[in-house]
Amino acid sequence: MGSSGAVPAYGRYPSAQLINLHNEYLLVDCGEGAQMQLARFDLPLMRINHIFISHLHGDHYLGLPGLLFTMHLHHRENDLHIYSPKGLDDILTTQLYHSRSVPCFRIVLHTLNTHTSELILEHPHFTVHSFPLYHKLPCCGFIFREKPKPRRIDPEKIPPGLPPSRLVALKNGEDIYDDAGNLLYKNEDYTLPPRPSHSYAYCSDTAYDEHLIQHIQGTDVIYHEATFISADEAKARETLHSTAAEAATIAKMAGTKKLLLGHFSARYRDLDVLLEEARALFPESELAIEGKTFYIHQI
Amino acid sequence: MGSSGAVPAYGRYPSAQLINLHNEYLLVDCGEGAQMQLARFDLPLMRINHIFISHLHGDHYLGLPGLLFTMHLHHRENDLHIYSPKGLDDILTTQLYHSRSVPCFRIVLHTLNTHTSELILEHPHFTVHSFPLYHKLPCCGFIFREKPKPRRIDPEKIPPGLPPSRLVALKNGEDIYDDAGNLLYKNEDYTLPPRPSHSYAYCSDTAYDEHLIQHIQGTDVIYHEATFISADEAKARETLHSTAAEAATIAKMAGTKKLLLGHFSARYRDLDVLLEEARALFPESELAIEGKTFYIHQI
Repeated sequence: MGSSGAVPAYGRYPSAQLINLHNEYLLVDCGEGAQMQLARFDLPLMRINHIFISHLHGDHYLGLPGLLFTMHLHHRENDLHIYSPKGLDDILTTQLYHSRSVPCFRIVLHTLNTHTSELILEHPHFTVHSFPLYHKLPCCGFIFREKPKPRRIDPEKIPPGLPPSRLVALKNGEDIYDDAGNLLYKNEDYTLPPRPSHSYAYCSDTAYDEHLIQHIQGTDVIYHEATFISADEAKARETLHSTAAEAATIAKMAGTKKLLLGHFSARYRDLDVLLEEARALFPESELAIEGKTFYIHQI
Repeated sequence: MGSSGAVPAYGRYPSAQLINLHNEYLLVDCGEGAQMQLARFDLPLMRINHIFISHLHGDHYLGLPGLLFTMHLHHRENDLHIYSPKGLDDILTTQLYHSRSVPCFRIVLHTLNTHTSELILEHPHFTVHSFPLYHKLPCCGFIFREKPKPRRIDPEKIPPGLPPSRLVALKNGEDIYDDAGNLLYKNEDYTLPPRPSHSYAYCSDTAYDEHLIQHIQGTDVIYHEATFISADEAKARETLHSTAAEAATIAKMAGTKKLLLGHFSARYRDLDVLLEEARALFPESELAIEGKTFYIHQI
């Protein structure tokens, strides 16, 4: 929903992405205007139960208070979980105090460890890990991983008349024995391999840092900030951001299938220079621009 | 730049208006996304020296931190004056602390008196007064008034060969005497009356409140919030907002020339219901929607 760096420009918005993972909607960063972008792209604001804030630079969280207030005015009831480096509680509490507001739902703030990778969310179908990024403020990336999926019943091989309880057992990956303990059905003879599990890594904001490869190695898709082109590398060094070439280098070293680029500086009206620079090193690069959807299970 | 009430909807943004008064750009309220709207309408963000925040509900100030940060990244040098009820210093300081940022320009915070009208800005060509509004939080309206303008030299009546010093004296409204003290030129014989001075009043957010008429009486143009239609009057009572009919009633009683309506509830997709309701009582009503410019000196 937002592909812009710190200064929004040319209709681009600050960082915000929405992930639909097994019908859970996960918001990753929440730059100013995120709630308007959710509405603009007809995305289900009220179904977001988890928000991940990478760090406390304004372009990554300033859309949060307005989003929370809109959820309140829409009479949200479910708990909302927010994962952020230390400080967000202070910011939100100060704002709520001065607006004399008490949200009608529970906000559960989870403070991120910005020094080491941690499991921060375990869902029946997926996990989310945080890991440290190298930026001016304590900052985390996030990895979203589907858990291994069950083997699937092979409809062509199921014995006719198999009782439902045994079908469920096969679905659950079990071998089936008779009462005397003899193997009746070996699971893998009647099932197909599980569908692949997918993964997505979010890396923003960060200087070029090969330390992060250990965390994101082998993820299917990586989002990596690409604030500058190589010609402006000095600016990237100074601000602890990355160039498109550096993002591509990380993607290549991490063995990913696709690289998404974002957090573009306002100095580039036309983003093709960034895309071309990345594709020269890593052809499977894309611009993660406003309104664009990527289907990770199809990659 | 923003005509929406608390929940932005249908592409409408939260409250924000830009006033150009003798080439000073004054920002009135600064809802989320104001900096994007400034860019969208090609308005000069860096020339804003005064920002007036009516109250500390999020939809009236959440665009401020991002705007300040963008000014910082654009290397602003001039002081920036912000007028707000108590609390904004606390909010901004907390955010700056956690983002480890120090703006490269001076922010001068002026705390508004929310109990009585006050002169808050005196400029060579205009004044700005605040006055209390009746809302859930301490809240101020603002009145922008051009000072009386000088009489204008009547080119058809100026005596030929009049020395420039005497021309300036006439321009300054003086009568001209000879050394013996005899009246040579009576000012009004050689000058035209001054052009009219204009005024604009901003009233948001407020319940219907006839107390505010004393403050805005006779202003050329009044902006008055019109969050609801009369059919939803109970909602207006509960939330201390106004209906379009109430805004029109205030405009009529204040003897204004034009009424601008805004702060529309998300429950109305089509705003014509609000406009029609106001016009039935006060025909010179307009919707102050995104991108719309009103030329007050032509009204």
